[in-house]
Amino acid sequence: MSIMFKNICIIGTGLIGGSMARAMRRNGMCEHVIGFGRKEDNLKKAKELGVIDSYSLDLAEAVSEVSLIVLATPLGAMKALFEQLKSVKPELAIITDVGSAKACVIQAAKQVYGEVPSEFVPGHPIAGTENSGVDASFAELFDHRRVILTPHDNIDPEALNVVRELWTNIGAQVSEMSPEHHDEVLAATSHLPHLLAFTLVETLARMNEGQEIFEYAAGGFADFTRIASSDPVMWRDISFDNRLAIVKMIDRFQDDLSDVRAAIESNDDEHLLEVFTRAKNARDNFTT
Amino acid sequence: MSIMFKNICIIGTGLIGGSMARAMRRNGMCEHVIGFGRKEDNLKKAKELGVIDSYSLDLAEAVSEVSLIVLATPLGAMKALFEQLKSVKPELAIITDVGSAKACVIQAAKQVYGEVPSEFVPGHPIAGTENSGVDASFAELFDHRRVILTPHDNIDPEALNVVRELWTNIGAQVSEMSPEHHDEVLAATSHLPHLLAFTLVETLARMNEGQEIFEYAAGGFADFTRIASSDPVMWRDISFDNRLAIVKMIDRFQDDLSDVRAAIESNDDEHLLEVFTRAKNARDNFTT
Repeated sequence: MSIMFKNICIIGTGLIGGSMARAMRRNGMCEHVIGFGRKEDNLKKAKELGVIDSYSLDLAEAVSEVSLIVLATPLGAMKALFEQLKSVKPELAIITDVGSAKACVIQAAKQVYGEVPSEFVPGHPIAGTENSGVDASFAELFDHRRVILTPHDNIDPEALNVVRELWTNIGAQVSEMSPEHHDEVLAATSHLPHLLAFTLVETLARMNEGQEIFEYAAGGFADFTRIASSDPVMWRDISFDNRLAIVKMIDRFQDDLSDVRAAIESNDDEHLLEVFTRAKNARDNFTT
Repeated sequence: MSIMFKNICIIGTGLIGGSMARAMRRNGMCEHVIGFGRKEDNLKKAKELGVIDSYSLDLAEAVSEVSLIVLATPLGAMKALFEQLKSVKPELAIITDVGSAKACVIQAAKQVYGEVPSEFVPGHPIAGTENSGVDASFAELFDHRRVILTPHDNIDPEALNVVRELWTNIGAQVSEMSPEHHDEVLAATSHLPHLLAFTLVETLARMNEGQEIFEYAAGGFADFTRIASSDPVMWRDISFDNRLAIVKMIDRFQDDLSDVRAAIESNDDEHLLEVFTRAKNARDNFTT
């Protein structure tokens, strides 16, 4: 199936929204991309870069003629957007989002609409870089990357198909799971690692030797902390919006780290070697 | 100062020992490299690859004609090597090592010799990859990388000069600090990050969705866990041999992670944003 939209509206033309616009243009999947956002500077830049064709600072105007609306804003902005869209969205226009946590977005839609709108297809591309903003966007961001769609009970199967094809057409591998399961999987694979990296850099920065410490940090550390350059506001939102799953993962991690600490302190050779070997094997399997 | 050795002995021809041999040969710094180790297969391979000129399974023979001995074995093997070297090492031959913890190696030498030999120069190149073994060695491993020398009270300044020049000649940036300070700095910048990576992979592998979890792991996570493929035996040794500094760092990290967890749970917007922003700034400063 090849899909084609006449007009689409990207709300939030940052790294993800901008890259979606670029990818859909590259593949000839839309005639006109309208940008909407809070900051006119961003929208101007997106237009100058050719990421969007036009923009509006008025949401009703921005979405009036579109058949697809992409919510590519921080999670914290989603509920207010649903509220604003409620009275102005064309009845048939599909809404999809790219939020890194899914139960909270579905919950926000439910609170605003009473029940989750059938034309809302919650989604999450597992793609990104440590850079943010439309400057950092590029059409290939989603090539061979996974996109998880998390259908809700009220979803229109046709809308789900359209969004699935949209992502497939721009090169992603699409899978589906429940919002709750998505949130657990992402807490483990993305949110916890980011929080560990942020915390590690914080721990080191707070040491007396702060500056010196960073001078001696070598390869492994740089890999480890690259993700600590990610956008703080985005991660604050994710932390709150996937709170339950994240706190559960932090607890598990702290238990495991306490075990490692105890093994080091008590010279428990066998246990430590077991953990390190299992981790190496798991990681080696993951990469092959 | 340009230095030249006639014969040198590399004990442990793995990634670091092999790369040192390659780098010294590349720069014409030695005429003949003799390998010594426990496994003949490794030594044969090192000879086939042209990393060493010859090898011996007899330590007395291996070191009889050399003016430099490099201990490039896991930390756990150092003490036994000092014991074996005690009766066979040529009196003037300089010994240096590449161990990732320094107080323990100096302590081992002291235990064996009564006082730390003046011709022993403890060192640590902050370089490596997640691969190990002589196959992974390459002459450029130390280019522009830091090497820390940790002089002890009894050190011969001339021996220290020779080892400093050795590293400078093969492209490294050499600095000096006390063994204890080295161990704290490395616990923070290398040992703790490695332990976090090992523990994270362990935590994820133990989840019910083990396999699925790794399928959804994206870019940031891959960076993070690359270092979890490092050699488990080496890391077991490091963990024990730098126990005090490592346990202290784990405790600091656990405290900071508990603060982050509490901020997430209590919706403490300000604190979380502060931590994330400080980490991003510290990390961004570090890379520029």
